[in-house]
Amino acid sequence: MFPTYDVIVVGAGHSGCEAAVAAANMGSKVLLATMNMNTIAQMSCNPAMGGVAKGQIVREIDALGGYSGIITDHTAVQFRMLNRSKGPAMWSPRAQSDRMLFAAKWREMLEAHPNIDFWQEMVTGVIVKGGRACGVYTSLGLEIQSRAVILTNGTFLNGIIHIGEKQFGGGRAGERAAKGITEQLKELGFEAGRMKTGTPPRIDGRSINWDALETQPGDEEPGKFSYTDTPRLARQLPCHIAYTSQEVHDTLREGFDRSPMFNGRIQGLGPRYCPSIEDKIERFADRDRHQLFVEPEGWNTCEIYVNGFSSSLPEDVQFKALRKIEGFENAKMFRPGYAIEYDFFPPTQLKLTLETKLVSNLFFAGQINGTTGYEEAGCQGLMAGINAHLAIREEAPFVLRRSDAYIGVLIDDLVNKGTKEPYRMFTSRAEYRILLRQDNADLRLTPLANQLGMQGLQERMQRVAAKQEAAEEIGRFVRKASVEPGQVNRYLTGIGSQELTQKVKLHSVLIRPHVDLQSLRQVLPELNQFLGNYEQEFIELAEIDMKYEGYIERERERADKMNRLENVRLSDQFDYHELTALSKEAREKLTAARPATVGQASRISGVSPADISVLLVHMGR
Amino acid sequence: MFPTYDVIVVGAGHSGCEAAVAAANMGSKVLLATMNMNTIAQMSCNPAMGGVAKGQIVREIDALGGYSGIITDHTAVQFRMLNRSKGPAMWSPRAQSDRMLFAAKWREMLEAHPNIDFWQEMVTGVIVKGGRACGVYTSLGLEIQSRAVILTNGTFLNGIIHIGEKQFGGGRAGERAAKGITEQLKELGFEAGRMKTGTPPRIDGRSINWDALETQPGDEEPGKFSYTDTPRLARQLPCHIAYTSQEVHDTLREGFDRSPMFNGRIQGLGPRYCPSIEDKIERFADRDRHQLFVEPEGWNTCEIYVNGFSSSLPEDVQFKALRKIEGFENAKMFRPGYAIEYDFFPPTQLKLTLETKLVSNLFFAGQINGTTGYEEAGCQGLMAGINAHLAIREEAPFVLRRSDAYIGVLIDDLVNKGTKEPYRMFTSRAEYRILLRQDNADLRLTPLANQLGMQGLQERMQRVAAKQEAAEEIGRFVRKASVEPGQVNRYLTGIGSQELTQKVKLHSVLIRPHVDLQSLRQVLPELNQFLGNYEQEFIELAEIDMKYEGYIERERERADKMNRLENVRLSDQFDYHELTALSKEAREKLTAARPATVGQASRISGVSPADISVLLVHMGR
Repeated sequence: MFPTYDVIVVGAGHSGCEAAVAAANMGSKVLLATMNMNTIAQMSCNPAMGGVAKGQIVREIDALGGYSGIITDHTAVQFRMLNRSKGPAMWSPRAQSDRMLFAAKWREMLEAHPNIDFWQEMVTGVIVKGGRACGVYTSLGLEIQSRAVILTNGTFLNGIIHIGEKQFGGGRAGERAAKGITEQLKELGFEAGRMKTGTPPRIDGRSINWDALETQPGDEEPGKFSYTDTPRLARQLPCHIAYTSQEVHDTLREGFDRSPMFNGRIQGLGPRYCPSIEDKIERFADRDRHQLFVEPEGWNTCEIYVNGFSSSLPEDVQFKALRKIEGFENAKMFRPGYAIEYDFFPPTQLKLTLETKLVSNLFFAGQINGTTGYEEAGCQGLMAGINAHLAIREEAPFVLRRSDAYIGVLIDDLVNKGTKEPYRMFTSRAEYRILLRQDNADLRLTPLANQLGMQGLQERMQRVAAKQEAAEEIGRFVRKASVEPGQVNRYLTGIGSQELTQKVKLHSVLIRPHVDLQSLRQVLPELNQFLGNYEQEFIELAEIDMKYEGYIERERERADKMNRLENVRLSDQFDYHELTALSKEAREKLTAARPATVGQASRISGVSPADISVLLVHMGR
Repeated sequence: MFPTYDVIVVGAGHSGCEAAVAAANMGSKVLLATMNMNTIAQMSCNPAMGGVAKGQIVREIDALGGYSGIITDHTAVQFRMLNRSKGPAMWSPRAQSDRMLFAAKWREMLEAHPNIDFWQEMVTGVIVKGGRACGVYTSLGLEIQSRAVILTNGTFLNGIIHIGEKQFGGGRAGERAAKGITEQLKELGFEAGRMKTGTPPRIDGRSINWDALETQPGDEEPGKFSYTDTPRLARQLPCHIAYTSQEVHDTLREGFDRSPMFNGRIQGLGPRYCPSIEDKIERFADRDRHQLFVEPEGWNTCEIYVNGFSSSLPEDVQFKALRKIEGFENAKMFRPGYAIEYDFFPPTQLKLTLETKLVSNLFFAGQINGTTGYEEAGCQGLMAGINAHLAIREEAPFVLRRSDAYIGVLIDDLVNKGTKEPYRMFTSRAEYRILLRQDNADLRLTPLANQLGMQGLQERMQRVAAKQEAAEEIGRFVRKASVEPGQVNRYLTGIGSQELTQKVKLHSVLIRPHVDLQSLRQVLPELNQFLGNYEQEFIELAEIDMKYEGYIERERERADKMNRLENVRLSDQFDYHELTALSKEAREKLTAARPATVGQASRISGVSPADISVLLVHMGR
C-alpha cells in the first residue's frame, strides 16, 4: 500500500509539522502519520506564538526555512514586540493567533508540499532492524517502511488527564491517548520517564465584564515573524489583564486536599516556569496576587484562554475561584483546566542531531524529549527533519552551536544536561545573547540552511544580502557624516546627554547612551533623507551593529574560543577510565554521556575546567 | 457551577446544533454539551448537504428558522439543482460544502446566540426524577440541571469501528466513543438496538489523474438553500465522476472472507440505500460497474471524498481495488473507509414530538432514532428543540403533518412504523409530493414557526408575503393577457405544440405541456417587461401554481381528507381489546403503538381500512 518513504514523521503537532516540512524541503519523501487529520497543528495550550526567548526561536525557525513564522503571520490577531525598552538582545516578538486558522493554514501549507504524504492512524511502534529504524507499525497491523523515523508524540504517549480526583486516558481534552510506543522503546533499552503539564479553563467571553480588566492592545506598528513577504496585521484584537486576589487564593486552597498535585496522584514533574495556579500560590505564599493574561482564541469566537490560571483542582473549585476574580463574577466555563501526565524519554539518550544513540535513524523531537512550548517543539522538529534527511544520505550532520542560535542552546542543554522537568527556553540560558538576536536570525542561519540545500530559501537569501548591504551602507554613511553642535545640542540636552562643543562624526554621537537613529533623523534632514531609502528592520540592524559593537565583538571572541573546543572531537570509543588524571566523577559522567566534542564535555555537570585541561593535554593541545 | 437550564442538548452534530438553535430561538436557555468543542458540526460523512428529498428538508429547516441552509450557503463550494428536467416536485437542491468552513460557521453562529451556553465533557446519563428528565450526569461526576433534555448522540453510543478484521472503540475515526447512556436508558426500560453505517476512504487529490474522470460542474446560475439573504456562489469547484469495473469488483471480492459484513462480526443493519461498495457488488452482481462521485472537501485542501465507495473491507483490499479504478491508478489514501456500529433506540418509543413515551421531557433526535443523513438529523433536532421548549411551558406540541412537510413524513414514519435499518428520506416516502416542494417550503412552514413565537423570522416572513403577492400578481397578469397566433406560433411549432388559430388567453398557452414562462418571455415583450419586476423564484412559484393547478388541488383534497382523520384524536387510555369489531392484529398493534389520532392509526402496518372504519364508527363519525 505504501512506497518506502525517506522519513516517517509520527505526530502532526508543532514539532511533527516542522519535521515533515524540513525533511521535505531538503528533498526527502515524507509520510506524516497522525491519529486525526482534523487535528493537525492544534494549539493545545494558549493561542500564542513567541514571547521572551521563544520569539527568537520562531524567527530562527523561519530563518532556517521552517513554516511556524509564516503561519503565525498569516493567522495572527495581535502582535507585540516584548522588552522594547531593554537592549536589542531582549527584544522578543510575540503574536496571538486565531486557533482555528492556525491549524487550517498549517494543513493547507503541508498539503501544498509535493513531498509530503499523509496517513491517519495510530502508530503503535517503530520497526527496528539491525539497530536501525526502518518504518512504523500501526494499529491496523500495517508496516510502513522508511529510511528514518521521527517521533513527535507530544503529550499523547500514555497520556492521563487529571481534574481533581478524576482521571481519564487522553492525549488532549476530548482526544485519545497513544499506546504501544513507550512499551516498545523500553524493550529496546530506552529509559522513559513521566512529565506533567497543564492548561487553564476555557471561558465564555460573553460572560466576562471586560470593563473591569486592563486592556493590552497590540503594537501600533505591528511587526511580524517571517523574513518572507507575509502580510502585516492591519487590524488587531486586544488582550486583557486580570488579577487573582487573596480571596481567589483562599478559595483555591479549599480544594488542595482534592488536588492530584498535592495528594501524590500526579507523579510527573511539571514546568517550573509555567506552573499551575495552585503551584504558584503554594510556592509564592507571600504574593497576594498573580497576573492573568486573558487571551482571545480568534477573530470569530467568544472562547477565551486564561493564561496563568492553569489548574488541575476539582472543576467546582476552579469555577468558584474564577468567579472571585474581578471581571469574572459571572464567568461561564466551556471546560475546566486540567493537568496531563505523559511519557517522555530523557534527552541524554540523544545525539546533538536528535538521533537516538541506541537506534540509528530514529529521531525524537518535541515534548517527547521533555520540553514544553510550541516554539521549543517546532525547532526540534525542524532540526530532526534536516538531520533525518542528512542521515539517510550519510551526509555530515547539521548541528547548531550555542553561539549560532537559541536552537543550539536548547538542544545542547537537552542532550548534555538532560532535564527532569519540562524544559522551557529563557534568554538566561544563552551565553551569547547579544549574538542571538531576533533581528539577525536570518543573517545567522539562512545561509547555513541554504548551504545544506534546503529548498524555498531564495526570497530569504535575497533579503539577507540586501539587509547586509544596507547595514553596511548605513554604517558607512554614519561613520563618514559629521554633525555641528547647533544641529543636535537641543536634542542632546533634552535626553540629558552632554552638548557638543565642536563638529564631530555622527557615529560618535550615535554610540552615546539613549541616542538613537530614529531621534537623530528628526534633527538631521540629510540623515533622514538617506535612511528614507531603507526599511526599518535594515536600519535597526545597522544601528545595533554600531551601538553594541563592543559587546558584540567581545561575545564573538568568547564564542570563538568555546567553539574551538567544540571542534576538538572525542571518539565514541574513548576510554575515559584509562585517563586517570580525570576526576572519578568526570570519568563516570563522560563514559555515560559520551560527548562528541570537548566543548560538549565541558558542559556536563560534574566535569570541571581542570578535567577539560586534562582532556586537551591528552588530545595534544 | 451551572444555572438550571431550560434545555440541555447532548451532542453537537447536525441534530444537536439545530436543536440548540431552535430551543434558543423559541426563548429557552440552552446548554449544548459536547465531548469536544473543536468538533462541533463535523460533516462526518460526505461534505455535502441536500440532494433528492434531502434538499427539500434543508429548505424546510430554513423555513422553520433553522440554520443548516444558512450555513451551507455560506460555506458551499458547489451548488446544483437536481432533477431540473423533471416536474417541480422532484427539483432538489444540493450543495458541496467546505468541510472545515461548515463546522467553523456553525460554531460562530451558535456562539453568537445569547441563549446558548457550552460545556465540553462527556455526558454519561440523564437525570430522571418522577418519570421526568431534569438534567444530565457527566464523566466528571457533575449533575447539570434542566427542565428538558435532548439526546443527539449520533454514532457515538458504544461506537465500534470496523476495518477488515480489526475493531476499535470510537465515535468517528480518531475520536472516542461515548459510554453510559445506553446502559442507563435500558435500565429505565428503553429498548435499544444496533445499527451500522460506513464511510469511504479519503484520498489524496494530488494523486488522482483528473483527466480520466468526468467533470461535473455546478449550476451555471447557482441557487441557494436559505430564504434569507445569504450569499450566492460566485465561483465553484467541480465534482468528478468515476466508475468501478469488473476488475475492481473482483479485487474487492478477494477480501470478502475478511469482511466484517460477511463474516458476521457486524450485527447492526446498514443503510439499504447508501450501501457499502461490497454490499452493492454482492446485491447487484449483474451490474458491471457502479458510479462514484469524487467530491472535493473544500477550497484549500487536496482531500477527496469518494462517494459510493464506502467500505469496511481490509484496508489493503480497499487500496488495491481503488487503484484499479480509472484515474485512480496512483491514488494515495489518507485513511481507509470503515464501518461503524452504534446504539440506537427504536423510534416507536417516541411521541410525534420526539419526546420519549417513557420519560417525559426527554427527547431523542438524529441517528439515535435510527435515521441516516445530516438533513434527517438536522430536522429532528429542530423539531425536538421546538417541542422541548413547548413541553416545559406546557404549551401545545408542534407536530407537522405528512401534508405539511417532509419533516412530517419523516417523523410520522419513524414513530408509527419504526425502522430496522438506517432510515433515509426519499420523495417516494411522501404521499403529497406536489405540495411538499423545495420552492414553497417557506410558504408552507414559516408562518407556522412564526406563530409559535420562533425568533429571527422577520426577514423570512416578509419574503413569504412578497412571494405570495408576486405569485398572485403574475397569475392575474397571465390570466388576463391574450396572445395572437403570430406572436407565439413559431415558438409553439418549435416545441411540437399545436399552432394557435385565433387570439387566446396567455394562461391557456402556458398550461400546455413543454411551454414555460421563460420561453414565452422571449417572444412576448410585454410579458417580459412585466416579469422583469420579479425575482426568478417568485416567477417560478407563479408558474408552478398555474401549470400544476389541477394536481395541486387534487393532492390538497386528498390531504384534507386524511387530515380530518388526523384530527380525530384517540385517547391514551383507549381499550382496543374491548372493541371486538377490530381484527385481532389491529387490537394488538393499536394497543402496542397507542396512536394519538385515527390518521396515525391508519398508517400502522396491520391496521386495515376496515379497522379504521370501525374506529370512526365507534368515535361517532
